[in-house]
Amino acid sequence: CSSEAADPRQVPSSSTVNSSISNRQELYMIDAVSPGSIFFLPHGTRLINKLVSFMKLQQMKLNFDEVMTPLLYRKSLWEKSGHWDNYKDDMFVVKSSRDDEKESFGLKPMNCPGHCLIYLRKDRSYNELPIRYSDFSSLHRNEQSGALSGLTRVRRFHQDDAHIFCTIEQIKDEINNNLRLVDTVYKTFGINDYKLLLSTRPSEKYIGELADWDAAESNLKQVLESTGKKWEINEGDGAFYGPKVDILLKDNFGKEHQSATIQLDFQLPQRFKLTYKDSQGLLKTPVMIHRAIYGSIERFLAILIDHYEGKWPFWLSPRQAIVLPVSNEHHLEFSQDFQKKLSGFNNDLNNAISLSKRDLFDVDMDSRSVGINRRIKNATQKGYNYIIVIGEKEINGGQIAVRNCKTNQVEHYSSVDELREKFVELTESFQ
Amino acid sequence: CSSEAADPRQVPSSSTVNSSISNRQELYMIDAVSPGSIFFLPHGTRLINKLVSFMKLQQMKLNFDEVMTPLLYRKSLWEKSGHWDNYKDDMFVVKSSRDDEKESFGLKPMNCPGHCLIYLRKDRSYNELPIRYSDFSSLHRNEQSGALSGLTRVRRFHQDDAHIFCTIEQIKDEINNNLRLVDTVYKTFGINDYKLLLSTRPSEKYIGELADWDAAESNLKQVLESTGKKWEINEGDGAFYGPKVDILLKDNFGKEHQSATIQLDFQLPQRFKLTYKDSQGLLKTPVMIHRAIYGSIERFLAILIDHYEGKWPFWLSPRQAIVLPVSNEHHLEFSQDFQKKLSGFNNDLNNAISLSKRDLFDVDMDSRSVGINRRIKNATQKGYNYIIVIGEKEINGGQIAVRNCKTNQVEHYSSVDELREKFVELTESFQ
Ligand SMILES: [Zn+2]
Ligand SMILES: [Zn+2]
Repeated sequence: CSSEAADPRQVPSSSTVNSSISNRQELYMIDAVSPGSIFFLPHGTRLINKLVSFMKLQQMKLNFDEVMTPLLYRKSLWEKSGHWDNYKDDMFVVKSSRDDEKESFGLKPMNCPGHCLIYLRKDRSYNELPIRYSDFSSLHRNEQSGALSGLTRVRRFHQDDAHIFCTIEQIKDEINNNLRLVDTVYKTFGINDYKLLLSTRPSEKYIGELADWDAAESNLKQVLESTGKKWEINEGDGAFYGPKVDILLKDNFGKEHQSATIQLDFQLPQRFKLTYKDSQGLLKTPVMIHRAIYGSIERFLAILIDHYEGKWPFWLSPRQAIVLPVSNEHHLEFSQDFQKKLSGFNNDLNNAISLSKRDLFDVDMDSRSVGINRRIKNATQKGYNYIIVIGEKEINGGQIAVRNCKTNQVEHYSSVDELREKFVELTESFQ
Repeated sequence: CSSEAADPRQVPSSSTVNSSISNRQELYMIDAVSPGSIFFLPHGTRLINKLVSFMKLQQMKLNFDEVMTPLLYRKSLWEKSGHWDNYKDDMFVVKSSRDDEKESFGLKPMNCPGHCLIYLRKDRSYNELPIRYSDFSSLHRNEQSGALSGLTRVRRFHQDDAHIFCTIEQIKDEINNNLRLVDTVYKTFGINDYKLLLSTRPSEKYIGELADWDAAESNLKQVLESTGKKWEINEGDGAFYGPKVDILLKDNFGKEHQSATIQLDFQLPQRFKLTYKDSQGLLKTPVMIHRAIYGSIERFLAILIDHYEGKWPFWLSPRQAIVLPVSNEHHLEFSQDFQKKLSGFNNDLNNAISLSKRDLFDVDMDSRSVGINRRIKNATQKGYNYIIVIGEKEINGGQIAVRNCKTNQVEHYSSVDELREKFVELTESFQ
């Protein structure tokens, strides 16, 4: 459980530390048959699932609607969206081997055009706005093979992506809510040191009305000011379609990472001829806001690995506890039962578990036929939060001795349920 | 709420009914820019998410480990797996537009090769078996455009896929557990009428040892017999790499659908040179079991749409309740608050919701400025399970009148919490 003391003479780089923790904890692997795509191993998948579930919860509260959209779209769509002209080199082109499909497809690098198509499926009224589509789809960007690196420069990744379609008047509230969401989410991970960066209208190449730009930028400045957070202007660095707010956070090694982004877009709604009927019955063009809170979930995971130095808080940990039977001959059955109960399951195979089942914990078991001390050492290295050794005493005595790897103390519990209560408490308080 | 009585003279086909329900409930859309790929709209996404969450829960209990694997793999991998020779026409071929990647990629039609690579990443011991990888990745199969239809014949789909790597001796238990899982899951959906079909060794083209085939088939027969379910033999109809059990279920229209499948595979482990060290220290080749319980989740959803005729049980419903303020001027704020509470959320934007939060319900609100009767009618057509109209009486009186659309009765609740208790009870009992 104890941390290895760092040698102050050696200052390891972020990426070295990152991959050494990931290897030791068996979070993911990469393979030359799929450069830039991550294979998430079971414990890495648990982390990704927890990050995604956590974000979905926060977004539900803010009335985002999750959608699932295709990965392949005809070239003609990418021409319409402008990606074919401006982004083609970064896209994977897909061909059908059949004669009945002559047109090429592009594997999506972004969700925006797909969400515009959903917006377009029926006439929209001001009544329905803001419409907020969230999407956790796989995205592919064809990064050069030399640039690929671990979790941070990949070809396949996932975003906690969302697009908000709203009126000009609604921009302010939407930006404000999303900046609060950034703050709430980052605070939960103990990330308090981040910077907001407003990128404004480029001096030459831009589209849309000057008045809209001015209104949007002044809105954004007011919102940024009201957060009480540090913010800076990056004059003229906005996208040609609208101003944006980027969030930069500093990792433990002092390196800055761009994570969240909130971008206003006046262009895509025009390209896709999106409209809504206002309260007077007039057709108007909505504004589109692209935003992500984690940004790339893979990159955010890399930041968290550095941030926590692999010592996951209990609620987020992919290894919340492990059960180790001293002897497989005598303690295996009790241990299996214990693991099942501590995880939150039972042995009833005939009745399904309902969706209201809660408080499921990631409890592993190591019953390999190697010595108990080696298994304890191994569990320590893997970063389990709690280690529970089951021997004669535990089976007969009733008391359960649990090693808390954060404090390195042994805690005693009278029952599985009491230990589960502790686990619930840790989860609820984000410890 | 009431169902439209069916005209006995007209017997609609499964697919007509299916798409009319899907349209009315706004579950998904399709678009010519992505033939055969489904755009799941917000309420369709809720259904898919519930189906996936439900399966994950059942699989966790059986110690499956979820993994996330890439979508793109070099041609060389598909050559090794045999897909390039036998399945190429059904695969989408992907090219990089960059010079640094000359080799083609294949967009995966199946997860099996990816899971073999994870197995291969380290030496395996008999101690670790069975290894059970589950995966909900996107799969792409290049069906001919003429064959595409709704949710059932698609190009992009998802499976509740899993691969089990085990010893010959472990096959029986694994098959047995998965057949029980099929039964438990299908029973939960009220699907009791299904048939098990054992496909055995082809008379000529097959690989592997005759003794292994015989042992596997006799194992499968014993397991099938022990289920007490109807089962039949399809002599000689197994895959060339191993025998399989398919599950055929009948929909409301008498049409049979193949859903779950459990396949033994002696070939892929050899092609990928998978090994494990047995208890004597000897290298052995594991058996691989391919299995899916829903099969294609898209197709399973289509079956459920028919099965329930669009009348979703509460626990699975994408529209569990809707709140309708009589007047936006006077009842909007109370309604918003009510909707939030009934969903399980609060208005605190500064604290994150923890992963132990439970009992979140899909409660929508319709506050469009159209008459209350039109909104009630609309909610009825959409298939909401509960409709809650908020007017003066509800705000002042304290009692909440709730229309239960299943019974078409009005029920009275004294508080949001009491109604939530009812919702929890319905969820836990799969009503
Ligand atoms: Zn976007
Ligand atoms: Zn398979």
